[in-house]
Amino acid sequence: MAKCGDTWFFEKPVYIRSWASCVGTKEGEGPLGPDFDIVGKDNRFGQKTWEQAESRMVQIACQKAVFKSGLKPQQIGCFLGGDLLNQCISTSFAARQLGWQTIGIYGACSTMAEGILLASALIESGLEKTPLCAASSHFCTAERQYRYPLEYGGQRPQTSQWTATACGAVVLDGEQGKVRVTAATAGRIYDPGISDTNNMGAAMAQAAYETIASYFKDSGTSPADYDLIVTGDLSMVGKDIVEKLFRDDGIDMSVNYNDCGLLLYYVNEQDVHSGGSGCGCSAAVLCARILPELEKGNLRRVLFCGTGALLSPTSANQGESIPGICHLVCLESAV
Amino acid sequence: MAKCGDTWFFEKPVYIRSWASCVGTKEGEGPLGPDFDIVGKDNRFGQKTWEQAESRMVQIACQKAVFKSGLKPQQIGCFLGGDLLNQCISTSFAARQLGWQTIGIYGACSTMAEGILLASALIESGLEKTPLCAASSHFCTAERQYRYPLEYGGQRPQTSQWTATACGAVVLDGEQGKVRVTAATAGRIYDPGISDTNNMGAAMAQAAYETIASYFKDSGTSPADYDLIVTGDLSMVGKDIVEKLFRDDGIDMSVNYNDCGLLLYYVNEQDVHSGGSGCGCSAAVLCARILPELEKGNLRRVLFCGTGALLSPTSANQGESIPGICHLVCLESAV
Repeated sequence: MAKCGDTWFFEKPVYIRSWASCVGTKEGEGPLGPDFDIVGKDNRFGQKTWEQAESRMVQIACQKAVFKSGLKPQQIGCFLGGDLLNQCISTSFAARQLGWQTIGIYGACSTMAEGILLASALIESGLEKTPLCAASSHFCTAERQYRYPLEYGGQRPQTSQWTATACGAVVLDGEQGKVRVTAATAGRIYDPGISDTNNMGAAMAQAAYETIASYFKDSGTSPADYDLIVTGDLSMVGKDIVEKLFRDDGIDMSVNYNDCGLLLYYVNEQDVHSGGSGCGCSAAVLCARILPELEKGNLRRVLFCGTGALLSPTSANQGESIPGICHLVCLESAV
Repeated sequence: MAKCGDTWFFEKPVYIRSWASCVGTKEGEGPLGPDFDIVGKDNRFGQKTWEQAESRMVQIACQKAVFKSGLKPQQIGCFLGGDLLNQCISTSFAARQLGWQTIGIYGACSTMAEGILLASALIESGLEKTPLCAASSHFCTAERQYRYPLEYGGQRPQTSQWTATACGAVVLDGEQGKVRVTAATAGRIYDPGISDTNNMGAAMAQAAYETIASYFKDSGTSPADYDLIVTGDLSMVGKDIVEKLFRDDGIDMSVNYNDCGLLLYYVNEQDVHSGGSGCGCSAAVLCARILPELEKGNLRRVLFCGTGALLSPTSANQGESIPGICHLVCLESAV
């Protein structure tokens, strides 16, 4: 059966054929610095506004991913992308320049996993051969939209996360590639009642737990079956909660579980408090570290679990708590 | 071939099994008033804020569509939904209550067509049996987010459109239904350089023309092959431009072409200026008028072409012009 419980098991081969990442200066100074395809000289990428800079990063990452695939740009069947900005403008304005058929998606920081999940389904359907997905975020666009003007210099509590200036893009293919997408679980929305917008890791942790637990049940697997289980982005606070929720079920996640928000930065040295976040965080960690290790065969089987906090400043100001979602894709080395 | 040019031709049967609409008072007073499933007594739907009211409409329309399908709520495989609000909160907060696996999408006013397009592909893939799509908008949430506080009473130019207080929801099915989805074209983004946010019909018209023209080419059909070609929502200004662009190609669209923004209201009497707009406009017109006529066999073959203006107030304030997109689905009577 193609769907079991909440999980799609792909019957046709679905490959990730190529990928690319484009990040800002702070990300370039982090532990993955040498692994990114493009690190900006500054965070403007030659543009006048932060929003245009983020959009430019999407273009750069997409074009680089297509270049690395060896495909011609016109062979990309469709583009699935999203970001954190109101009305997803960094994606739309990039897509205006890129010219591909465009399917806009929104999953907050889970967007990259959502895109891979949908693009994989399009390959399974036989309707698309080589779709492309991307997700982006930019510290400066997110700060002024969600929090305070940069110039205000607001204090950040220790539970807060640092929105990554980053974009990742992947080209999927039904015929060739060194990494396979074998299964995917679209998440349900969970809301543990947290309304502190500086504590989004805690708000998303339950959704991560629920999706991963559903996937374990649907697939009949456990943490020991994976080289790496990675959420993105719960950071320190949320990761601890996920580990505790599984511990309560008698499942030990401590061995091979990590979070993209903790991999992108030197968390203690780079003043990012609880860790990284933003659609671009998990997207860039995927493209800079996880996919290359799968390609080399150093990792054989990875659960990539994108987590999103589905709030807006309006909902937060109205006193609503923060709904969380987690979309999961299972990635396997094909070498 | 499953994909020809930009168009997916579904090889498996894809049906729309049931649908429902939920609208506000002004929409209830329009020409489709008797055709909606639920018309609010007021535009609050028992909620404290306009945003919560919009979210409540999504819940109501989805629950009604599922009820009419005869399926149990837990049989809905996944929910694809989106709206105009920052971070798509009316969809996310509704999905929190509804409990289904949720795939967030963003296509501005093209969202309903985008949802049907993706849900159809999921059925074609064999991964989903009965997905559900919905799209919503609310006049009061859109005004304060995109334009002015309602209390300000800003003057509206004649090219402006009225954001519908409306939601439409459809349940798709791979096995049964009286309306079939036979083809779909995901749009590319076009930007004719218009930066007047009170003239979005003109901004979206080129995208509508391009997608419909691509579809005609891919399918080898012409307007005469359809009982109705309907965009949503270009309203008066944009509809005229689409007709002119086709006239320049020697194609007469005047016989069977209409726009959801002109069908939802008594345009001259209800003070909506150029016509209706908003994700909920085309979604509600689809569910209240187009699908019932296909179900009865009064319409045999319809092109439903959702059009979206992919701007944000931030992009507009930065002087950016307005990118437009159009997603198309071909609907055929199965009776």
